Amino acid sequence: MTNSWVPGADASGFGADNLPYGVFSRAGAPPRVGVRIGDYVLDLAGALGDSEFFAASLNPFMARGSTVWLATRAKVAGMLTAEQGRAVAEPNLVPLGETVLRPPFEVADYVDFYCSLEHASNVGAIFRPGDEPLKPNWRHLPVAYHGRSGTVVASGTDIVRPSGQRLPPGAKEPVFGPSTRLDIEAELGFVVGTRTALGRSVSVSDFAEHVFGVVLVNDWSARDIQAWEYAPLGPFLGKSFATSVSQWVVPLDALGAARCAGREQDPAPLPHLRRLADWGLDITMEVRLNGQVVSRPPFGAMYWTADQMLAHLTSNGAALRTGDLYASGTVSGPRKDQRGSLLELTWGGSEPITLGDGSTRTFLEDGDTVTVTARAAGMAGATISLGEVTGTVRAAL
Amino acid sequence: MTNSWVPGADASGFGADNLPYGVFSRAGAPPRVGVRIGDYVLDLAGALGDSEFFAASLNPFMARGSTVWLATRAKVAGMLTAEQGRAVAEPNLVPLGETVLRPPFEVADYVDFYCSLEHASNVGAIFRPGDEPLKPNWRHLPVAYHGRSGTVVASGTDIVRPSGQRLPPGAKEPVFGPSTRLDIEAELGFVVGTRTALGRSVSVSDFAEHVFGVVLVNDWSARDIQAWEYAPLGPFLGKSFATSVSQWVVPLDALGAARCAGREQDPAPLPHLRRLADWGLDITMEVRLNGQVVSRPPFGAMYWTADQMLAHLTSNGAALRTGDLYASGTVSGPRKDQRGSLLELTWGGSEPITLGDGSTRTFLEDGDTVTVTARAAGMAGATISLGEVTGTVRAAL
Repeated sequence: MTNSWVPGADASGFGADNLPYGVFSRAGAPPRVGVRIGDYVLDLAGALGDSEFFAASLNPFMARGSTVWLATRAKVAGMLTAEQGRAVAEPNLVPLGETVLRPPFEVADYVDFYCSLEHASNVGAIFRPGDEPLKPNWRHLPVAYHGRSGTVVASGTDIVRPSGQRLPPGAKEPVFGPSTRLDIEAELGFVVGTRTALGRSVSVSDFAEHVFGVVLVNDWSARDIQAWEYAPLGPFLGKSFATSVSQWVVPLDALGAARCAGREQDPAPLPHLRRLADWGLDITMEVRLNGQVVSRPPFGAMYWTADQMLAHLTSNGAALRTGDLYASGTVSGPRKDQRGSLLELTWGGSEPITLGDGSTRTFLEDGDTVTVTARAAGMAGATISLGEVTGTVRAAL
Repeated sequence: MTNSWVPGADASGFGADNLPYGVFSRAGAPPRVGVRIGDYVLDLAGALGDSEFFAASLNPFMARGSTVWLATRAKVAGMLTAEQGRAVAEPNLVPLGETVLRPPFEVADYVDFYCSLEHASNVGAIFRPGDEPLKPNWRHLPVAYHGRSGTVVASGTDIVRPSGQRLPPGAKEPVFGPSTRLDIEAELGFVVGTRTALGRSVSVSDFAEHVFGVVLVNDWSARDIQAWEYAPLGPFLGKSFATSVSQWVVPLDALGAARCAGREQDPAPLPHLRRLADWGLDITMEVRLNGQVVSRPPFGAMYWTADQMLAHLTSNGAALRTGDLYASGTVSGPRKDQRGSLLELTWGGSEPITLGDGSTRTFLEDGDTVTVTARAAGMAGATISLGEVTGTVRAAL
């Protein structure tokens, strides 16, 4: 572990090996880019004397490319660990409690993948009982679809229960009303920094040139709306009402010690999707419902890795823009207590879970709060926290 | 017809009853917002003395809302029809040939609907032979999905043939390479001007408060990639390589005379989707392949109308942003020569069409140019042209 002179930082999960980026403001002042260290935010505009960080989003910084990302990270790490950096950094440390956090980046396009073998198998079995749960394409490419970037919201934003059409069990005609099967999807999201020109693919080996960092994602889902609408063009209103992301973007470079071999793939992917480096990520997520842990999804168990997702996304020449967000899809492991959605945890609502107060849940009730956190191992015993993504369900309008 | 003093304007389809908005620049100068009249562009910044029109996109103007849209339109129409407006307008007319047209607006989210009964029935029959062509939801809601807004390009942009995975007929394993079934989809697109807050639905009666105008859309589609990838989450790479839009946004107000009753709907839609006004649009489109008309899709035959699409899109509380684009889906009429895609015109490639030079086509070849145009009736014998969306296919990289 790299030690920081900032009080409490080393043991916080936000020590000198992490250094995630976010956007904050103080007492009505305009937003600025900062780096979290322990329970403080380092004001980068002040600490680095770079006016680029007087910004309402990370996009201008992310657009500068990986050389600048690494150089900036090295400078900030130096300042927060060496005594000689302290004189410059200390006056630019703001207690977290004195800040208001803003959405960290402007989302360009949002893509949601479907990369957990267990999740895809579970959902297939629940939505299409009797059929082969995995479609024939699933092991050949990381299945994905575009979501709504205009409704990606920051952690802490209340989630209004969506209304929509659903077909009640046994009914012949749909009805319209508040969703009765509101769910979560615990995911990891990858934030693109460096854009590409239309027509150019990004090879698996160029992953770290383009992806700036990682956030936690809760892809709220209305299962009843989704089940009725999704054939044949995929999910739409069952997802587009809200997608929450965490406030701190953890740089890819902070996850070096968490890298692991991706899960074995059979059949071997076609050449353009073949892995050339270890971009599996050994990250353990925790899903809390009203404070109680209901699942611990293991990101390391994902079938498709993030470098493969990006290569697939661009394999048709689709351009990338700064701020593109692509999420992994629900992270579910092989064990029952590793499932990343209530749909799976309650097996389509047929096996309610019991909370600490004795109440049971199939899907979310108004007032429920869902919080997803995640941690990875850093260098030499350090812990890298990915922060949290949280949201509370409000009654339909 | 309202007559204009601009030479040639009355008979051009871009007369004083049309007045579509676009973004242009001259000889390396910064972009500005203009209105097309005949073969000229009226420079709005100059003509109206409003610096808001020194802009690289229509978004700032569209964000001002429908009262400003209508007032601006009335002012411009007055200037281009009455002799007393001529002194101000004439020095601000730029010959179209001296301008470079820019993409007219910045796309926020892009949604593609599936609103033609004939198109959905044809595609269902071709993609899922033996099954019921329409899914049970189709007559209850306008099916849609999100597309990639970062690859929406302006008319005239070359289209590089995408590569991707496909399953060759009879094969057990997919292959990767240039698409062999590159297609078009002739559509109408609706451009959102006025944003909404998250959680708020837009009722069918508020359609014209939010939609600024209409463009032509060619939603290029790689049918082989799409057929392999689309289950169960919908189209992704088969569409995301490029979507072309026309350069001139025709204001909704220019289409007053083209409004017609929407097609009869059975069963009656649920209350939130029930029509309250005539928002069918009697617009005839023409699809040309290398100059030859291959189809005349009638927009008036669409099953779902644009007010219903918007009400559906927001019925779960999804927010709208200025620049949101939603397209109708392929426009196909009941007759064979009214189908808006090659997939349908050649019935999945099994019935090639013959061009004027004696060559045949199932899907597009490198070098092929596809141009979609459209016209509607205006007031008192006027014609409203929607311009064109065109693109030429280039070989895969």
